[in-house]
Amino acid sequence: MARPRLSEDTRRRLLEVSAAQFLRQGYHGTGIKDLLDRVEIPKGSFYNYFPSKEALGVATIEYTARCTAAALTSAFDGAPDPLSGVRAFFESLLAHFEDNDFTGGCLLANLACELDDSETCRVAISVAYRQWRDGLAGPLAAAQAAGTVRDDVPAEELADTLIEAWEGAVIRMKVDRSAAPLRRCMRLLLDGYLRP
Amino acid sequence: MARPRLSEDTRRRLLEVSAAQFLRQGYHGTGIKDLLDRVEIPKGSFYNYFPSKEALGVATIEYTARCTAAALTSAFDGAPDPLSGVRAFFESLLAHFEDNDFTGGCLLANLACELDDSETCRVAISVAYRQWRDGLAGPLAAAQAAGTVRDDVPAEELADTLIEAWEGAVIRMKVDRSAAPLRRCMRLLLDGYLRP
Repeated sequence: MARPRLSEDTRRRLLEVSAAQFLRQGYHGTGIKDLLDRVEIPKGSFYNYFPSKEALGVATIEYTARCTAAALTSAFDGAPDPLSGVRAFFESLLAHFEDNDFTGGCLLANLACELDDSETCRVAISVAYRQWRDGLAGPLAAAQAAGTVRDDVPAEELADTLIEAWEGAVIRMKVDRSAAPLRRCMRLLLDGYLRP
Repeated sequence: MARPRLSEDTRRRLLEVSAAQFLRQGYHGTGIKDLLDRVEIPKGSFYNYFPSKEALGVATIEYTARCTAAALTSAFDGAPDPLSGVRAFFESLLAHFEDNDFTGGCLLANLACELDDSETCRVAISVAYRQWRDGLAGPLAAAQAAGTVRDDVPAEELADTLIEAWEGAVIRMKVDRSAAPLRRCMRLLLDGYLRP
């Protein structure tokens, strides 16, 4: 059989659309046909890009992790110091949620909550959270060295705690349709607990 | 038409089974027929108990809130002081997660993540989180008065933050299949941030 001609652009569009639809309708609520209609490619060609819906799930989780990494880089690039970068990163997430009227939430958390039956997705989400944690732990360690963040707790643990409190606040944001839980998380933890 | 004979016991069993199945398979992944087979009642009689699947969803969320309230009462009844009660409550949740090999997670968070399309479920989850918050804020205020919890932040905000950090840690627990995020949350926040 001739090897099918694959397009990087089509693959990227499939991931963008699956991320949006998984966020809106959940993994099980999203059909492959719906994704293909949106990307405007025939059904048969889907399996040239991904061997299964589960493989698309894993690729979408990895795509989400790359988006988070890009948001971190962008926030730190424009910040005068590491702690300001951490704040800018969370402010950028908040602005994104405001633009979406506090619907959707975090795709990693949504898929983690929804999927107990896919081992490969579970592992991919676990890796994505660790990458996010590492992306924050580095700047937090630099802030510890600069004396702007408490140094009696390892930077990795501070990053884990900040991410988890944020993820819980995102869930409250969704059900309250309000930025208040996110603002409280930043005020009490980022501006409170994390300080020396 | 004669009013159908309803059984409180059947209603309670429907809620127990729906809570377990929603936790295992999600709201959209759970069919009403599956629930009825497990409770062993005919399909027609479901609508005598709940006018719709969405109404069952709301009732299941309220049932979950009552379970949380009962766990709080049980933890505080056996505790020598309010702060010990708060710790006993979270230890009881952790023991439950250990019994289930860190699968499932928190039904409130799972449904909040999954359901963006049901306004009545969204409001029910929001109310359930506020009840949980209030159930912790009272004892935390008592602990503040006793000098065992910091009093520079309102007890309600401490309760919200603790619950949200816990819910985020439960998500990490699920994807890491480990109690470590829950233990870290208790160590850094309950034994750290909350102290005077």
